[in-house]
Amino acid sequence: MPDQATVHRIAVLGTGRVGTTLARAFARSGYEVIVGSRDPDALDEERRGQLGEVAVAAFSEAVAGADVVVDALPGEHAVEVVSSLGDLLDGVVVLDVANPLDTSRGMPPTLLVKDTDSLAEQIQRACPRARVVKSLNTVNAAVMVDPGSVGDGDTTVFVAGDDPAARELVAGLLTELGWRDVLDLGDLTAARGIEMWLPLWVRLMQILGTAQFNLRIVR
Amino acid sequence: MPDQATVHRIAVLGTGRVGTTLARAFARSGYEVIVGSRDPDALDEERRGQLGEVAVAAFSEAVAGADVVVDALPGEHAVEVVSSLGDLLDGVVVLDVANPLDTSRGMPPTLLVKDTDSLAEQIQRACPRARVVKSLNTVNAAVMVDPGSVGDGDTTVFVAGDDPAARELVAGLLTELGWRDVLDLGDLTAARGIEMWLPLWVRLMQILGTAQFNLRIVR
Repeated sequence: MPDQATVHRIAVLGTGRVGTTLARAFARSGYEVIVGSRDPDALDEERRGQLGEVAVAAFSEAVAGADVVVDALPGEHAVEVVSSLGDLLDGVVVLDVANPLDTSRGMPPTLLVKDTDSLAEQIQRACPRARVVKSLNTVNAAVMVDPGSVGDGDTTVFVAGDDPAARELVAGLLTELGWRDVLDLGDLTAARGIEMWLPLWVRLMQILGTAQFNLRIVR
Repeated sequence: MPDQATVHRIAVLGTGRVGTTLARAFARSGYEVIVGSRDPDALDEERRGQLGEVAVAAFSEAVAGADVVVDALPGEHAVEVVSSLGDLLDGVVVLDVANPLDTSRGMPPTLLVKDTDSLAEQIQRACPRARVVKSLNTVNAAVMVDPGSVGDGDTTVFVAGDDPAARELVAGLLTELGWRDVLDLGDLTAARGIEMWLPLWVRLMQILGTAQFNLRIVR
């Protein structure tokens, strides 16, 4: 297992609820965290307040020197943003937590990519030397950083990526967030199934009346 | 809740592992069960042996007089077969357990329909007066009829369909098979998410080395 001590700086791309929630959680764990934004000066006071002491910078400034870059961008912008970062992501572990949701035709969302491809694979192709790992996109922001808040036991989170050491490094970060059932699904094509979970998640949220739920793989 | 006593005869379309497993389970529960086949005379001895006392007939003969028709056909043939049955399915509860898997390009399978449509909705459109309910396609045949064989507790099975009474009738059949966590997801568009679970299921089967697993929705 790779030494988590090799991770010092984490850049989180995206200033939405997922980005701010993850940034604060990683900061609480003791990492140096910086949030990347398209326009840091345009960030409203509420978002900045939610981030506390966490710094905000332009995307390219945020990722410079980061050991892990978290993609918490809206799915429709993720490929464009990571592509714009060019070789800044070479060798960097990119934790992709985004979902390729198309909300342009209202609710429920449909998927921008599916079945024979995935957002995570698009990101990997856009940044061939990044070490992309898909994870955490299967739960809402609150559950991502507090998995013990769901039910009375351990629920499951998946990791998938072509680089086994990157998967293990992300699994270590997940363990620090409180996840105990981290299921390694192997190479990045598993992201197809992981992302296609979302339509069922959306329906479950509507039926259950809450986003505070998750699946457990019982075997 | 509709009276399960109104269900006397169940027709199971399909002589594969799912069809024969469900047919035997419903027969054990005391229903009059008949299996529908494209060519009943071509059924090999092994399949016929697996069916025990359960009769096999041509599709149209099997569904005549049935209160519930189970679609356990290969996904690529389901719409064609139910379409051919015309008004024989009027008012009948059609329990669609099939998955729209495309295995023509090898493993893993891709999906023949997804995201903005589903196999269950295609079947409903082909037979507008049938009462289509999607369920059970999220687990393998052995788990369908013996849900207690997975893990040490209750795992989840979904039902979706446009007719609430049909969903409740199917939920009653599932309870008889041993299911205790039957989650009603509402109208038939929920089948999109339920069917898009399959690619993740296939990867999990590969990683876990068994099909004896299921998800539990923890809330």
